[in-house]
Amino acid sequence: MAILRRIVELAGGTDGNIAVVATASGAPLDPALRYRSLFLDLGIGQASCLPISSRIQAYDPGVVERIRKSTGVFFTGGDQLRITSILGGTPVHKALLERRMEGALVAGTSAGASAMSDIMIVGGPEEEAPKKCTTKLAPGMGLLHDSVIDQHFAQRGRIGRLLSAIAQNPGITGIGIDEDTAIEVGPDLCFTVLGSQTVTVIDGRNIEITNASERAPDSPLALTDVTLHILPKGYGYDLKTGKPLAPKGD
Amino acid sequence: MAILRRIVELAGGTDGNIAVVATASGAPLDPALRYRSLFLDLGIGQASCLPISSRIQAYDPGVVERIRKSTGVFFTGGDQLRITSILGGTPVHKALLERRMEGALVAGTSAGASAMSDIMIVGGPEEEAPKKCTTKLAPGMGLLHDSVIDQHFAQRGRIGRLLSAIAQNPGITGIGIDEDTAIEVGPDLCFTVLGSQTVTVIDGRNIEITNASERAPDSPLALTDVTLHILPKGYGYDLKTGKPLAPKGD
Repeated sequence: MAILRRIVELAGGTDGNIAVVATASGAPLDPALRYRSLFLDLGIGQASCLPISSRIQAYDPGVVERIRKSTGVFFTGGDQLRITSILGGTPVHKALLERRMEGALVAGTSAGASAMSDIMIVGGPEEEAPKKCTTKLAPGMGLLHDSVIDQHFAQRGRIGRLLSAIAQNPGITGIGIDEDTAIEVGPDLCFTVLGSQTVTVIDGRNIEITNASERAPDSPLALTDVTLHILPKGYGYDLKTGKPLAPKGD
Repeated sequence: MAILRRIVELAGGTDGNIAVVATASGAPLDPALRYRSLFLDLGIGQASCLPISSRIQAYDPGVVERIRKSTGVFFTGGDQLRITSILGGTPVHKALLERRMEGALVAGTSAGASAMSDIMIVGGPEEEAPKKCTTKLAPGMGLLHDSVIDQHFAQRGRIGRLLSAIAQNPGITGIGIDEDTAIEVGPDLCFTVLGSQTVTVIDGRNIEITNASERAPDSPLALTDVTLHILPKGYGYDLKTGKPLAPKGD
């Protein structure tokens, strides 16, 4: 709840106007109404549900106008491929990128978080040793560059699939977000951790050995000299420099 | 099976004599007989089950003599605290350390692997964000120094508890062994990975930030600049220098 409260605050509080986008869900009405009501309970000025379940709706000038007027856009969970396959390249997508540049809040939970980066994880084995290329990647919404976000991270044993994603391009930063945990990314590309659990950052820039480009995609991954950071609430990370940040005041 | 075959080979093959120790199990007869029969099927010269289910038995000169005559000792799985609480400090324990120094094979699976290092993980949360001090540690058998071994590693989502163990003393090397996977440690303290999955090495010597010594043991861990290696079959690691080793011939 602390995370949703922060979303309301960042979206302008009583002066704010949050648009809830439940495109990730095959049955979007329930989650859309639930988050709308949560945001209103937490004191947002206005909250509405945007009906975007098809590419036709993502071209609707009325919907685009509502995004342009919102101070915050919130993506619910579900299937991240629904988000990108329905919104990718549409006027709604363009409006989102513009609003983000203008300083509006763009937030998401679960699939809604995964879809934020320019590369996203679509699926992959959990609780398994990392394999070379079994983690399925796809282009994301491009709201956060040079990153790949995974979620339900510790709870679903997903470090193997994030390591596999990073092995394919060690210059990309892997961000594994636990349940009830969030990152708040500022315009300076520094993020701060919110919530009760931790964020795992995987920095592959010093990788010396990897077999990721070799044959046999489902054979076990070799990967050395990965730098790993575990960051709980208050800690942060500078995505530009790759440096973890201690809580302010420490 | 490749791992057990290698154990037979290292224990001397047809000239070898393996002692199976099922102390970790509350009902040791079944696992002891099963492994004995597996080793015989795989061609070991002799294999026997050592009856050590109490400290009294671990003082038995006849049992000690059988360890001194064995070319390999194999610990089955179960509860690693049974191994250390029954064997710790006894003549059997002393004989094991001596046989190891003399070049005999000492091997173990599951709890039997966990008990090898001088610090061992007794228990801790799985599939959870790492917590400061919720991983329970105890002294192990001391056959491998400055290391802590965890097993069923990827399959049970245990990276959080191994990170928590390392945070308490970053100079110790964390070794997470997957199922159907093993490390073969040579007298030079270099190990090689065997089996179908991977070994995760956690090297904490470069850790810059940690909150492990602060209050609130079950609050989320902060830990930065951990070096992590994922090593499949053929890869290795030099425990003295902390360097991963590519397969020979590469």
